Amino acid sequence: MPTDDLDTPHPSRLTPAQARARFRAGLRVPTSGWCSGWTQANLLAVPRDLAYDFLLFAQRNPKACPVLDVSEPGEVSTPLFSGDLRSDLGAYRVYEHGEMVAEVDDATDLWRDDLVSFLIGCSFTFEAPLLEAGVPVRHIELGRNVPMYRTSVACRGAGRLSGPLVVSMRPVPSAQVATAVRVSSRYPAVHGAPVHVGDPAALGIRDLGSPDFGDPVEIRSGEVPVFWACGVTPQAAVMQSRPAFAIGHAPGHMALTDARDSDYLVP
Amino acid sequence: MPTDDLDTPHPSRLTPAQARARFRAGLRVPTSGWCSGWTQANLLAVPRDLAYDFLLFAQRNPKACPVLDVSEPGEVSTPLFSGDLRSDLGAYRVYEHGEMVAEVDDATDLWRDDLVSFLIGCSFTFEAPLLEAGVPVRHIELGRNVPMYRTSVACRGAGRLSGPLVVSMRPVPSAQVATAVRVSSRYPAVHGAPVHVGDPAALGIRDLGSPDFGDPVEIRSGEVPVFWACGVTPQAAVMQSRPAFAIGHAPGHMALTDARDSDYLVP
Repeated sequence: MPTDDLDTPHPSRLTPAQARARFRAGLRVPTSGWCSGWTQANLLAVPRDLAYDFLLFAQRNPKACPVLDVSEPGEVSTPLFSGDLRSDLGAYRVYEHGEMVAEVDDATDLWRDDLVSFLIGCSFTFEAPLLEAGVPVRHIELGRNVPMYRTSVACRGAGRLSGPLVVSMRPVPSAQVATAVRVSSRYPAVHGAPVHVGDPAALGIRDLGSPDFGDPVEIRSGEVPVFWACGVTPQAAVMQSRPAFAIGHAPGHMALTDARDSDYLVP
Repeated sequence: MPTDDLDTPHPSRLTPAQARARFRAGLRVPTSGWCSGWTQANLLAVPRDLAYDFLLFAQRNPKACPVLDVSEPGEVSTPLFSGDLRSDLGAYRVYEHGEMVAEVDDATDLWRDDLVSFLIGCSFTFEAPLLEAGVPVRHIELGRNVPMYRTSVACRGAGRLSGPLVVSMRPVPSAQVATAVRVSSRYPAVHGAPVHVGDPAALGIRDLGSPDFGDPVEIRSGEVPVFWACGVTPQAAVMQSRPAFAIGHAPGHMALTDARDSDYLVP
């Protein structure tokens, strides 16, 4: 890990506003471990005429799509995100008819006036509590993006939207799986408890070494792969359902919000 | 309390299907204490063109409007409610431009093909756990409807919908307030922890003896009024926002769903 100096504080110590300024200036890195204590969020922006279908899709799939905030049509900030949603994330993916047509650092020129932006909880939120509880988080140790996988589990559809559940995976020493479940289940608004522990084949995942999004990480002897519902699920629904237009964050490159992780902790 | 006999089991022992059959046949009573262990829900049905605004209103006011299920437009049952939403509740209130134009036992003739039905969590769900924890529930003791009050607290608006928070009130002995908080907070999907304990004036409630919905109940010496967010809040939004048409349940006359209370219990 880099050490702090006065000019370049470690990303974990930045405020959300400082982090957003760096991304706005063009920095493009995964945000796991950034702005410790501040909540990170997935982004999906869809045209107003698809907003009900998406909000209903989220209501029907709350583990994968816990909605933290919704913008007014055309607005580029929300009560939870005082930055500019078009430019203040590290990277964006732009979809037309379900095909990714661009991955950009700044989506301002591609934004549309009728877009409604949904901010969706992210499992990065409970990584600091996992670390505090002594559960290692391999992709943070390695400075990589978390591995994410499209599964064979279908979400419940809503209107024109359907698609598979996407999961993130963290290898956990078997003696600490219960702790990982207990800690993450206290954050239901950011995916909560794991959806699956142990057998990737049961989720239709053939090769943990080849994630659909993010980077692979080593699973060491005595470790079990633990799978959490992932906020990339909305983009998998866009890919399957092929609406005319949508913009999402690049997986792992999250929106740094003004909310505190503790806001989402249940007793 | 009436005792059971073979022909007339106590309402607490009925299945949801049995309860729905009674309401469909014309029975009209508040449902607090009915179908012990089965989840009860508030109903709001609005035209499809208002459904996004309402779903967003619910997302923005989750304590008052925890959405348990949403019907397809025109459908009169949902995965959570296998009965007929038009007839299987004890009583309904019908609104035109925010005015209650009818209160009926059966809304079948007034139903419209474009209605989307929202089922919203109800605090009756945690009353059995309160009783099990030794916390008295006065309106059940008295065989009355729970008292509900319009407050001076504004909900966060969404599109064309805005309105005040509505609360239910239960008097709790001061030594048991902490228990009531702890028990109800384990059911966040059915309003969860109280929004306020103690001072009705702080919520703009002038007279606890004159509830806006339901029946008054006595507050005894040593008891504190405890206020929970209430699923009548959507109807208060309808009254204030005056959409062309809406149908809700009559307050306290809930939808008996096929879900178990335990489905909504968090660790």
